Amino acid sequence: MSSYTISDYLLDVLQYGQVHKVLGVPGDYNLNFLDHVLTRKDMEWCGNVNELNAAYLADGYARQQGLAAFVTTYGVGELSAINGFAGSQTEGVPVLEIVGLPTTDTQRQQKRVHHSLGDGQFGHFQAVHQELGIVTEVISARHAVTAVNRVIRKLVTTKQPAYLGLPCDLTELPVNPAFKQLIPTLFTAPDAIPVPTVPFQLVQQAIHAAQHPFVVIGQAISQFHLGPVLQAWLAEQNLPFVDLIDSKGAVTESMPQFMGTYHGKLANEALQAQVEQADVVFLLGSSLSDANTAGFSHQFDPDHTITMNPAVISLYGETLVENPQEQFPTWIQQLCQCQRVTSTKSPESTTPVQPAEPVAKPHQPVSQAFYQAALAHFVQPNDVVIAEQGTSQFTVEDLRLPAGAEVISQPLWASIGYAFPAALGSQLANPDRRHLLSIGDGSFLLTIQELAFAIEHQLTPIILLLDNQGYTIERVIHGEQARYNDVPQLNYQHLLTAFGAAPDTYRFAEITTETELITQFRELQQATPKLTLLQIRLQKLDAPQTLRKFVNLLYDDE
Amino acid sequence: MSSYTISDYLLDVLQYGQVHKVLGVPGDYNLNFLDHVLTRKDMEWCGNVNELNAAYLADGYARQQGLAAFVTTYGVGELSAINGFAGSQTEGVPVLEIVGLPTTDTQRQQKRVHHSLGDGQFGHFQAVHQELGIVTEVISARHAVTAVNRVIRKLVTTKQPAYLGLPCDLTELPVNPAFKQLIPTLFTAPDAIPVPTVPFQLVQQAIHAAQHPFVVIGQAISQFHLGPVLQAWLAEQNLPFVDLIDSKGAVTESMPQFMGTYHGKLANEALQAQVEQADVVFLLGSSLSDANTAGFSHQFDPDHTITMNPAVISLYGETLVENPQEQFPTWIQQLCQCQRVTSTKSPESTTPVQPAEPVAKPHQPVSQAFYQAALAHFVQPNDVVIAEQGTSQFTVEDLRLPAGAEVISQPLWASIGYAFPAALGSQLANPDRRHLLSIGDGSFLLTIQELAFAIEHQLTPIILLLDNQGYTIERVIHGEQARYNDVPQLNYQHLLTAFGAAPDTYRFAEITTETELITQFRELQQATPKLTLLQIRLQKLDAPQTLRKFVNLLYDDE
Repeated sequence: MSSYTISDYLLDVLQYGQVHKVLGVPGDYNLNFLDHVLTRKDMEWCGNVNELNAAYLADGYARQQGLAAFVTTYGVGELSAINGFAGSQTEGVPVLEIVGLPTTDTQRQQKRVHHSLGDGQFGHFQAVHQELGIVTEVISARHAVTAVNRVIRKLVTTKQPAYLGLPCDLTELPVNPAFKQLIPTLFTAPDAIPVPTVPFQLVQQAIHAAQHPFVVIGQAISQFHLGPVLQAWLAEQNLPFVDLIDSKGAVTESMPQFMGTYHGKLANEALQAQVEQADVVFLLGSSLSDANTAGFSHQFDPDHTITMNPAVISLYGETLVENPQEQFPTWIQQLCQCQRVTSTKSPESTTPVQPAEPVAKPHQPVSQAFYQAALAHFVQPNDVVIAEQGTSQFTVEDLRLPAGAEVISQPLWASIGYAFPAALGSQLANPDRRHLLSIGDGSFLLTIQELAFAIEHQLTPIILLLDNQGYTIERVIHGEQARYNDVPQLNYQHLLTAFGAAPDTYRFAEITTETELITQFRELQQATPKLTLLQIRLQKLDAPQTLRKFVNLLYDDE
Repeated sequence: MSSYTISDYLLDVLQYGQVHKVLGVPGDYNLNFLDHVLTRKDMEWCGNVNELNAAYLADGYARQQGLAAFVTTYGVGELSAINGFAGSQTEGVPVLEIVGLPTTDTQRQQKRVHHSLGDGQFGHFQAVHQELGIVTEVISARHAVTAVNRVIRKLVTTKQPAYLGLPCDLTELPVNPAFKQLIPTLFTAPDAIPVPTVPFQLVQQAIHAAQHPFVVIGQAISQFHLGPVLQAWLAEQNLPFVDLIDSKGAVTESMPQFMGTYHGKLANEALQAQVEQADVVFLLGSSLSDANTAGFSHQFDPDHTITMNPAVISLYGETLVENPQEQFPTWIQQLCQCQRVTSTKSPESTTPVQPAEPVAKPHQPVSQAFYQAALAHFVQPNDVVIAEQGTSQFTVEDLRLPAGAEVISQPLWASIGYAFPAALGSQLANPDRRHLLSIGDGSFLLTIQELAFAIEHQLTPIILLLDNQGYTIERVIHGEQARYNDVPQLNYQHLLTAFGAAPDTYRFAEITTETELITQFRELQQATPKLTLLQIRLQKLDAPQTLRKFVNLLYDDE
């Protein structure tokens, strides 16, 4: 009898899927499973401070690594995490949540045990996840490997999160090690279902005929790792393209064909004119929402639009394939083999990559506009820029990113508090990549205790804390001076020490003037990476102009 | 046309129900409603730092005040709060969550808007709450007052939480002010349904015949505010009684009839013998679980037990009334009019109220046992003691509380992180009452940022922080030395300053020796109330003996 268990199998699967760090919070229903994590040499347990933060961190980790896993305990743990997990579902991020459940006997005997609702029914929380559209499986003695395989296949093929329940009496369930041979098959694409011939020919004809084609890169392009193939095609075919806030940097923005980040009526006039003049718009991997179209103000004429995303392939407003799902990457790959017949000269982007450093005045307080100009210069190739849902997202939206740099944000689910743990998760997956987090003081507070995690794991994000004394985005929406948009004022200079950082392990600066900001940014370009907190003081009503316009559009629309 | 709106009506109802402080987090779907809170002179908006903390605070507030309300925004806000809210559901705490929803038009048109799952369906989150057994209503233009009235009736009669959705376009919906006359009727008990005669006679006969009756006070006694009537009856009839961890102090423990806090086989032998010798046990308002019976180790012989709680009235194991619900308080009140025929001399409690101060040795490191002895002396009449689910709950369980003191804990839902915000909520409702919070370092971290709220609102809990370097309760359960039970070490002396406290507004002390603890406790008995953080250093495996025994019982049982 082998001592190989279902826990080992699950961890072997995750390890094969490049999950080297397991996140989460211990609880009495998952401790036995965690023992299996601790005994591995190829995997590290990275315990979080609370479960919501764990879910956010896992989301950030998965965006870098292609897959992430976090562990919670029954009831209290999984419900604490659920907002973060629902964000992964909404934005399409492949995260596995492993939930430690009460024993099979406890459940069968309908016992009134802690962490349950006390009604003897143990299916409520799984049902709650299903209601949110999340795929769920629960390991049973008879179908243990099958349950693991099912959730992993879902994660791999749909890039959506999945939930796996593991009753705490089954962690040591023996599994035949022969099943290990299955593992690679879980991660290989199934034999590609060929793209249907006639529908694809219609797309091909459209490319051949197009005089002024235009490509819109959407979120599913990064989700399915299709950036490189598209990048090559756009360059080769000299196709002008834009991205959206949720796909910013999915194809590198330093290419001359990059026209900007499109946000409907907020985009500059030249870009809007281009979109309107296009005879064919390729909407690739994008799902349009109020958040990525500036309140549905986009100008894609359905009669001239070809859409390809995991939910639909459509041409000129008519559906060619419903729910292509696993076939979606094949559609994109095949598209990228098409040649244009007439190659019109592509327009050139007018925004410079890494514009010149703005000229700082020594006593001039930092404004939002100055911050934005300084940041545009500060971003380096391959940076990961994490933009919180508030003013930061609107700041970052109009940057033109240098080669290989990308943005992580959450525009549709738009949960404040997400960005800080997500930045940590992303850097945990790739410690050598520079991470810039732009975040407001209101948002930072929601999940601030994960500073303890950042310090413990010696992570080095540069936190650009926009201290504007409250929820500035909400002030712009409603209640400019209302007390409900205020947040408590912290003494940020003591924060990292309070959360356990030794004096020489971090950098802190309070910034009020333009010169101070530029000085810090210059020093940071040269400095050894350290956990960095820059408290950048801004006026409480100083918001990006695009945010003000956006709010007008959004609330007019409703 | 009156300018009286549904928002005003809802707030008038809450005000009538003694809700003077409204908790929550602003979001763009609830800002219009919050304007109505701000304009009132009889109500204060108390914004929280995040939604989970808001839910916990509301739970604490409701335990003091009988009702609480907190406001969240659609999707992200309500899901962040849901673990705390599910705790109120499980433990039976009447909290109203008001959720700001997208406009009726947005919902009808199935728009893909931020904070939704993006599938055009807007009912998911309400359905999620229903799955947890929570009563939900959504305000519509046609049934606005009805929706409010329904949730309030539920809160008042069942003492369970309720969920009210308020689409953001309906906050200004005009309401006929005549409906204000309804408000008092929402809070009056319906004409009491008389307790059925014959079943009650059976109970009466049992009391008359009993030679050794014994009363167990359960959680629903405090939930339905039945402590005073029971207290009078127990004194008058000279009846011995115990409480459970979830009802500790519901009837004052300083009465000579109080025998202890019963926890099955963990109770002292004399108490166990008494329970076994009883010829009738009255289980009043108690729902037994693994958590309040030390792993179902209680010794209530069904053939000698009479149970009265909101779910059932039963006699000797047979059901007399199923789901008495609203009738439950009437049963208890009627019971409290019964006279014993034979009044056996009641045994006397052996544990002293407020035992003598333990003798401190100057260089002796504080142990768990010493902490427990010192705390027993430190607790004063009318204190509220909040015990976190870890070692603290087991510490507090064996105290005998002085007159009017009570314990807040969450033994069944048992969500770590609950106790700190719950303490703040309870003190927010009653700032003049002294609040002692006993909490571990692991638990404190989960919701630590609500320190900013405590500082802003000048709350003065005494936080007894048991710094035992991790999850000691989990270490006792499993993984004594496992890394997953470690938590990051903070520099607590900087914590309150970091979260915004001015130097003279708080008290901090790091305590390692017995003398230091006693000195602090003595000073605190005299001192002006201030926010106080005592970092009490304990060995990481130093746990209450009852916890060790409890874990054995619990895990043997499974």
